[in-house]
Amino acid sequence: MTEELSSEQRQQLEQWLGPERFSTGRSHLELHMHDISPHSGVLPAAVLWPESTEEVAKILAWSYGQEIAVTPWGAGTSTEGNPLPTVGGLVMDMTRMNRILTVRPEDLQVDVQPGVFRKELNARLSSEGLFFPVDPGADATIGGMIANNASGVQTVKYGATKDYVQRLTVVLPDGRIIRTGCRARKSSSGYDLTRLFVGSEGTLGVVTEATVRLAGVPDCHLAVTVTFPTLEAASETVALMIGSGMDPAALELLTEEIIHLMNEEKGLGLAEQPSLFCEFHGASEAMLQETVALARELCEDCGALDFRYGIDPQQRADLWRARHEAWETIHRAHPGTRTLIVDAAVPIGSYPEMVVFARQLVREHGVAGYVFGHAGDGNLHVVLAGDPEDDVEWDKLEDINRRVVERAIELDGTCTGEHGVGIGKRRFMRLEHGDSYDVMAQIKQLLDPKGLMNPGKIFL
Amino acid sequence: MTEELSSEQRQQLEQWLGPERFSTGRSHLELHMHDISPHSGVLPAAVLWPESTEEVAKILAWSYGQEIAVTPWGAGTSTEGNPLPTVGGLVMDMTRMNRILTVRPEDLQVDVQPGVFRKELNARLSSEGLFFPVDPGADATIGGMIANNASGVQTVKYGATKDYVQRLTVVLPDGRIIRTGCRARKSSSGYDLTRLFVGSEGTLGVVTEATVRLAGVPDCHLAVTVTFPTLEAASETVALMIGSGMDPAALELLTEEIIHLMNEEKGLGLAEQPSLFCEFHGASEAMLQETVALARELCEDCGALDFRYGIDPQQRADLWRARHEAWETIHRAHPGTRTLIVDAAVPIGSYPEMVVFARQLVREHGVAGYVFGHAGDGNLHVVLAGDPEDDVEWDKLEDINRRVVERAIELDGTCTGEHGVGIGKRRFMRLEHGDSYDVMAQIKQLLDPKGLMNPGKIFL
Repeated sequence: MTEELSSEQRQQLEQWLGPERFSTGRSHLELHMHDISPHSGVLPAAVLWPESTEEVAKILAWSYGQEIAVTPWGAGTSTEGNPLPTVGGLVMDMTRMNRILTVRPEDLQVDVQPGVFRKELNARLSSEGLFFPVDPGADATIGGMIANNASGVQTVKYGATKDYVQRLTVVLPDGRIIRTGCRARKSSSGYDLTRLFVGSEGTLGVVTEATVRLAGVPDCHLAVTVTFPTLEAASETVALMIGSGMDPAALELLTEEIIHLMNEEKGLGLAEQPSLFCEFHGASEAMLQETVALARELCEDCGALDFRYGIDPQQRADLWRARHEAWETIHRAHPGTRTLIVDAAVPIGSYPEMVVFARQLVREHGVAGYVFGHAGDGNLHVVLAGDPEDDVEWDKLEDINRRVVERAIELDGTCTGEHGVGIGKRRFMRLEHGDSYDVMAQIKQLLDPKGLMNPGKIFL
Repeated sequence: MTEELSSEQRQQLEQWLGPERFSTGRSHLELHMHDISPHSGVLPAAVLWPESTEEVAKILAWSYGQEIAVTPWGAGTSTEGNPLPTVGGLVMDMTRMNRILTVRPEDLQVDVQPGVFRKELNARLSSEGLFFPVDPGADATIGGMIANNASGVQTVKYGATKDYVQRLTVVLPDGRIIRTGCRARKSSSGYDLTRLFVGSEGTLGVVTEATVRLAGVPDCHLAVTVTFPTLEAASETVALMIGSGMDPAALELLTEEIIHLMNEEKGLGLAEQPSLFCEFHGASEAMLQETVALARELCEDCGALDFRYGIDPQQRADLWRARHEAWETIHRAHPGTRTLIVDAAVPIGSYPEMVVFARQLVREHGVAGYVFGHAGDGNLHVVLAGDPEDDVEWDKLEDINRRVVERAIELDGTCTGEHGVGIGKRRFMRLEHGDSYDVMAQIKQLLDPKGLMNPGKIFL
């Protein structure tokens, strides 16, 4: 594998792309060495910005022949070093392939290029009464979300990115262009290649176009906050609500520590108790009132201290913004630190045990750690803040991360519910997947025999 | 590849399995030559009934070494010849691996062996208030449903089999045992091998255990029948209802011809008009009444002649039984024929065009053909009845099938919405998938280099 470019190689790329879309400038290179994780990439040899499927195919066919590594890049909002170059070579920044190609309201679908940002897409769709409901918080690109199989607060009702991708145009590592899937809502036509590429983190090729499903913007939504005397009571309510068929559109667990930080920063005035933030979507106000009455009964049976709903749109927006910005809030509260984010997920019945276990670990280690998560999916986050240069402190954070992940895997869960493997979770893959990790490696070897696509990710 | 067994090979298998679970008896062999499709398999050399993952692994490792083809078998309810032996060798009948291993109500999951029948599973789950909501009509095995990515009337709300499979134990063609996926509701941990095996029709290995998700049995359900003056009006209503967020649990389109047959056979007394059969599920009667009021308004705006709901449980059961038995009803109305079932699916906005196109073709060809389908998914069935020995007639049926599929693919749809490729749809795969069909073949070659697992399926 070539890590540096020869002058001939540089000239070739510059000739194809022009100086606007090919750079070896230090600032461009450095900008593509960091996502929001504590991991660092190495300096790539160059960054380039393709503008079409054909151009991506030409570059990959050429770089495959030249044995140059290629690392695709979206918004850089990933949390496990997923798009960081690890061996030099090229960073392929997809953000100039940012066109919304065809909105198909009659099919509840849209065709997009991978560099379209999520919020921009939803802004465009709102006039159609439609939205792309996968919400990882960050303003990721659709391509990045596909690469990581992103999900978030609304996944409990609407599903993860995998549930929305109908069709992909993919350029394989050797430059072949394939189109996977179809636009029908369901199909049993051969192997599901679309699903193989979703979540493959750019290690099997580059997505250059996607057709994604959309949902109708709900006519009504209702936010609910519920406080509980204990974390156990709050987390046990989650499993019951999921089993009840109430179909919450969000079901988030927050511990008193993170609510305290949010209050401090945003003056939300929330009770600093273990809490659930829920949201319900429906076709009418009356239907939502019905649902909320059922939810209230369930929460009160579980010992809820306070059940609030019907908050006004501004409060609702503030609440969700605060939840979305939890990570930034923690950062601001611990200036100068980096964060390690635990992203384990477990079967819903094991969620209470997992949450209590994680908070206990944080307390025992005496570090800055905040437990919260997409409870309705059994997805647990612990944001651990510390100084990577302080070995003693950072080892404690790593130890918490490792022990939570190992416990999650013992409980038949996963090391990553939504952030992907990237660099940070590779060491847990064998433990989680056993011999099927070898089959993943066989597939990687099949499609990328030279190991050039996003090297150093998923596989150790 | 060996098609017949040597006497040593026969003795080896008989020694391992005993005479109860290994047969070369003509009646056993012949029973495994036909599913409900017009395709015929060839006589296998033997049928065997394994009872454990380890036994499947031992047999596959051995048969791989001996180069003997192996065709897995479930309930035999498939419609494209999916489990029929095409080259002799062994049929591996999974119906003795029929244990419900662990019901996990707290996680809304169950662990099953592949030979468990769908109806038996739901009978067992009903005491927990849970069900496995994928309903292909036939009483398939869970293993067969996984192999074909089965779906059906409730898929419009609940999803297809792919949406329910959390974890699989798979024996690969060379006898390796792997476990894919996890039991958390979501994961971004590497390549989604689970999804690769779902819908692979036993061509990549044998599923020997599965953890599937469950849904809560809805507290209330409400069936609705709506008649329309024209097929166009009925099918256009479908797309609007899907876009509306009403979330029907079933949305079936029936033409007057099939309703006529159902009335004749079952005395249902339904109006013989283009119709929608819908069902709504909810947590309370009041919520359903709300939904139905919205649905009525929409249907009436689309020109509905008659909108009936609140029918009693017996009528509701009769209605759905009649719908489920449509295929058998057609068979009985055309004794001595075989049926060719069109299973195309298209984006929902193209459904009206597709339905009208298919019925027009049937009329032009002057054959016995019935148009209906899982309209909410854009899935169109045309059941064509005829005599495969009558070349002129059968060619007409094949021509209709081909032209509907080609049109569906032009509309970015699929040749098979739910029945799988099997033998019958292989000839459309290149047209539908283009160069990505080669990637499927590469994956087949990777995991089954000798081509021994369910040969003659998916690939030509």
